[in-house]
Amino acid sequence: MKGKIFAVGIGPGDPELITIKAINVIKNSHTIFVPKGREEGSSIALSIVKEVVDLKGKQIVEVFFPMVKTKYEEYKKEKAWNEIVESVYERLNRGENVSFLTLGDPTLYSTFFYIHRKLIERDKNIEIHLIPGVSSITACAAVSQSFLAVGNEKIAILPANYIDSYDEIFDQFETIVLMKVHVVFEKILEFLRRRNLIERSVYITRAGMEGERVIRDIENVTVDDKNYFSIIIVKK
Amino acid sequence: MKGKIFAVGIGPGDPELITIKAINVIKNSHTIFVPKGREEGSSIALSIVKEVVDLKGKQIVEVFFPMVKTKYEEYKKEKAWNEIVESVYERLNRGENVSFLTLGDPTLYSTFFYIHRKLIERDKNIEIHLIPGVSSITACAAVSQSFLAVGNEKIAILPANYIDSYDEIFDQFETIVLMKVHVVFEKILEFLRRRNLIERSVYITRAGMEGERVIRDIENVTVDDKNYFSIIIVKK
Repeated sequence: MKGKIFAVGIGPGDPELITIKAINVIKNSHTIFVPKGREEGSSIALSIVKEVVDLKGKQIVEVFFPMVKTKYEEYKKEKAWNEIVESVYERLNRGENVSFLTLGDPTLYSTFFYIHRKLIERDKNIEIHLIPGVSSITACAAVSQSFLAVGNEKIAILPANYIDSYDEIFDQFETIVLMKVHVVFEKILEFLRRRNLIERSVYITRAGMEGERVIRDIENVTVDDKNYFSIIIVKK
Repeated sequence: MKGKIFAVGIGPGDPELITIKAINVIKNSHTIFVPKGREEGSSIALSIVKEVVDLKGKQIVEVFFPMVKTKYEEYKKEKAWNEIVESVYERLNRGENVSFLTLGDPTLYSTFFYIHRKLIERDKNIEIHLIPGVSSITACAAVSQSFLAVGNEKIAILPANYIDSYDEIFDQFETIVLMKVHVVFEKILEFLRRRNLIERSVYITRAGMEGERVIRDIENVTVDDKNYFSIIIVKK
């Protein structure tokens, strides 16, 4: 097998926050796989890359990751993944290089994990490279001038869905980064009010994209600010 | 005041892992401040940037951050920082742009935090921008193909010096990233042995630099592998 697959972190959204390595890897790939979720939309990853790489002559494959709620949907997702893996595998066998785009960094909450596992199951000799990218976490920290850690401080990165069970963690850590905050925002507000941490929190949405907002009074977050690209940083 | 100061994350060490934004910001700066620690060495940050930006005609200011152990050293450090801040301030007043290089990302364990605070104390109207970079954490994750978080997993980023007090944290998190591991490596080994996590750990040193090593049997880490640019990722 001569082809290689690269999971390419393209950064948080600002085309300028792509690395030289990501650009070079995409340039040297025959096919670009672009994951397309319900909320992310393929257009974002692809439009970021188009700003800095000429994609003429490359094959673009949009792959859809369905959200799973039922057994039937689970079956459809498995089927979708297996098709992606087969499609990648065919190309690698032909000696083609493949790039699989991921927003932010491929090791942080990216769907590539599942593809990675299935590719290795398919053939353990497949050459897979992960290309790190600027994560949305540090992009949000930068735009809000929040220093995530200084000296011996500890950082916790937490999906917000389980906010109710995080009391002990909030006791132990100096910095808490809450991900996926838009779905359970009211629960987060309640939690932070109870812990007296409202004034220690900042809400950042669409860092480096159009519509970027840094909201320091998080009681004032509006419906428009609640989207997939939002995080809350709490500095105690 | 017309000049701006940029804290520029230049990534973990591989010159290709610099972002386009970092390059553009450095190109548009009159002066480049390069922090120089005992262990980091200015040569690293500067040599990374030199690979991708032509620094001809720019003023390079190497700034030294002394390690502090005594009161007298504390005084010397304060003095060194104040001199840096004055030097930056003068340049901004002349309308010059200043870049302050930081390895990795400026919000993660970077010395720029102290400069940031002092600059704001000096004059709250100074325009400061943080330019996020690829952090050594995701670079190490990528090179070792460790997925830091999938789905609803939680990540803890911890300086290893206090490893003895991390039992509860190890109970609560799926992924633990240990920083600054070279100084207390034996203590970490003891801790991970006791917790039966040796086989769940990977030691990464110099990710993306010359001498990069991924050590999956962490009992085999040698003296040569123990340096400032090392982390341990534990996936439970």
